[in-house]
Amino acid sequence: MDFVISERMKGMRGSAIREIFKYAADPSVISLAGGNPAPELFPNEALAKIAERFLREEPVLSLQYGITEGYNPLRQYVKERLSRVESIHREGDETIIVSGAQQGIELLSKVLLNEGDVVIVEQPSFIGATNAFRSYGARLVGVPVEEDGLDPDALEKALKENDRVKLIYTIPTFQNPTGTTMSLEKRRRVYELAKKYGVPILEDNPYGDLCFDGRRFPTIKSMDTEGLVIYSGSFSKVLAPGIRVGFLTGDAALIQKIVVAKQISDVHTPMLTQLLCHAYLTENDLEADIVKTRANYAHKSKTMMDAMEAYFPKDVQYIRPLGGLFIWCDLGHGIDTLALSKAAIAEKVVYVPGNTFMVDMDAPTSTLRLNYSTSSDERIEEGIRRLGRVFAAALQ
Amino acid sequence: MDFVISERMKGMRGSAIREIFKYAADPSVISLAGGNPAPELFPNEALAKIAERFLREEPVLSLQYGITEGYNPLRQYVKERLSRVESIHREGDETIIVSGAQQGIELLSKVLLNEGDVVIVEQPSFIGATNAFRSYGARLVGVPVEEDGLDPDALEKALKENDRVKLIYTIPTFQNPTGTTMSLEKRRRVYELAKKYGVPILEDNPYGDLCFDGRRFPTIKSMDTEGLVIYSGSFSKVLAPGIRVGFLTGDAALIQKIVVAKQISDVHTPMLTQLLCHAYLTENDLEADIVKTRANYAHKSKTMMDAMEAYFPKDVQYIRPLGGLFIWCDLGHGIDTLALSKAAIAEKVVYVPGNTFMVDMDAPTSTLRLNYSTSSDERIEEGIRRLGRVFAAALQ
Repeated sequence: MDFVISERMKGMRGSAIREIFKYAADPSVISLAGGNPAPELFPNEALAKIAERFLREEPVLSLQYGITEGYNPLRQYVKERLSRVESIHREGDETIIVSGAQQGIELLSKVLLNEGDVVIVEQPSFIGATNAFRSYGARLVGVPVEEDGLDPDALEKALKENDRVKLIYTIPTFQNPTGTTMSLEKRRRVYELAKKYGVPILEDNPYGDLCFDGRRFPTIKSMDTEGLVIYSGSFSKVLAPGIRVGFLTGDAALIQKIVVAKQISDVHTPMLTQLLCHAYLTENDLEADIVKTRANYAHKSKTMMDAMEAYFPKDVQYIRPLGGLFIWCDLGHGIDTLALSKAAIAEKVVYVPGNTFMVDMDAPTSTLRLNYSTSSDERIEEGIRRLGRVFAAALQ
Repeated sequence: MDFVISERMKGMRGSAIREIFKYAADPSVISLAGGNPAPELFPNEALAKIAERFLREEPVLSLQYGITEGYNPLRQYVKERLSRVESIHREGDETIIVSGAQQGIELLSKVLLNEGDVVIVEQPSFIGATNAFRSYGARLVGVPVEEDGLDPDALEKALKENDRVKLIYTIPTFQNPTGTTMSLEKRRRVYELAKKYGVPILEDNPYGDLCFDGRRFPTIKSMDTEGLVIYSGSFSKVLAPGIRVGFLTGDAALIQKIVVAKQISDVHTPMLTQLLCHAYLTENDLEADIVKTRANYAHKSKTMMDAMEAYFPKDVQYIRPLGGLFIWCDLGHGIDTLALSKAAIAEKVVYVPGNTFMVDMDAPTSTLRLNYSTSSDERIEEGIRRLGRVFAAALQ
């Protein structure tokens, strides 16, 4: 039997990053490709005690069906922390717990996007989000990212020139994949443009807690007097990604529609992972954990950049991040980093070629993304040394 | 800001069942509405030990990102058990782990259904599935369910008379909501019709293990020489629903497309819940657990039917199930069970009105679904006594 795939999914391919994972399973391969948080920071002993306690003492709560909106104490915790840490506390907003921030983006796409609608995205941008938009038949319009965030003039041009713009998608802080952080002035400008053109913003902020020097950048959502910003957050980067717990905060009527979509999608996020999250976050000092995570990533990013200075050809350009997980590089000279990734795999090192993050994934690009959060110092250095050889050969 | 909801989701409402859950949170209300397994059967002590062990000893496996296809040992376990217990072992098939069977149905819908495609469903049928089809703009065509399963002549008529039939959806064993079981002859006929008209079947079998007397009914998938049956299974009813682990087995190329859709939807099912499932299933005797669950449900269904004989007006018709979780009742006499549910709530008992399960949810119906798996004997008896009063008043 030949199955006829739906129009929306026909052209969809698996994420190159998830495919690269398969190479990375070989321990002799150094992966600078993933977006995995540092596993040595997982609070696994504390989580083990919590899981044991809930399963033993609260079997019905842990194992029976739950409500779609999410475990209520966790929702309350999220609201309280958003208000305290991010100044997000708009009257008339609601919060839903989702199975990782990815699910929030997918459900929002399902609820908002008709075939042919336009989503304005940063170029480059996070493949998980762009693929979610694509999977509902949206047309993507890219706006270039500069060192201080997306180009607002290009955003206004995109808003003006395109009919049916349904959403602006941005990761203002430690953007994936570029690691750039949007200036306060640009955040204000983006919000004003969204208001002027009546287009909602999806603000994705998985890395906001991870500034190397502990700074916080004001979220666009904190400026949202009109209720046009939907804010996506995650516990993947401050607790652990394998538990798949994130949240979406925005206009209550819109969130109610997302609840309906989630009911259809997976009924609810597993109770146990929500309980783990809530108990860990309320019984421990998350802010102290985050201080450790920041220090770890500050150190690892420095290790990577020091190695890049030592081993990369001088022509390789890169952006120094203020936080997050990624360094964005540009080899220039018309080098196709997708083609070059084969040479890197032969040297047992993997990165993510830049085309993955582009609106047109088929056009060659000389850019690539490196991750420093997952590997040990030794493997970061050795990985960069190997890449240096690959790049030097390509640039000769 | 007024959000413009997508065409596909505009008309979607929350499941009445999940809404009824909100009343059921009041402990003085007896819920015969849910589809919750018996919580006293959850193997919570064993799961507590497993969770504690994995989180302590295997932090990276338990907490880091995993692959979208699912935890490989769990996939292998599912394949092995399907082969052993259900004679499902077609060459060229694959299995993906999903976040509850609901997710498998939603992802299959996303991958197969274009706006305006037809899905043939049993009438009545499971709202979670019908809503998934609706949420991708499918048109539902209902085929009546008889005591020995759907009417195959009506199925052939539906296949003949409708263009663009993309899928046949059936729950052959202990159907939700009717509790009916399809005869072997009808299963063969349904398969032959699907083959003749070139339309795939989604066979949903969450209750197949739960025959009161231990019988097994041959799955349609076990007859599938052509690869046209996609089989959906779940650990919700034999282990616990709150962990949200299910699976989908079918043609490998189709499953590969579903992997892409799942990557976009939630990246992967949480590692911890998959590990809990796999370790519990391989370290314990699932078949012995199932014997206990069956005996429990046989007893509870008898408790409910005995109470119905004692307290329901004689005019109330119902179908005696051979297994599963549900009893389907018909009050006749033009009674609208949706309207009547208000009177039931006033008497502190809830059921699911039959319209919930119909293709046209707005047409009044005299049918309703009762669940016996969740409540204690005492509450089943008291709930039926209360309903008896409500029905008697309505039928006067």
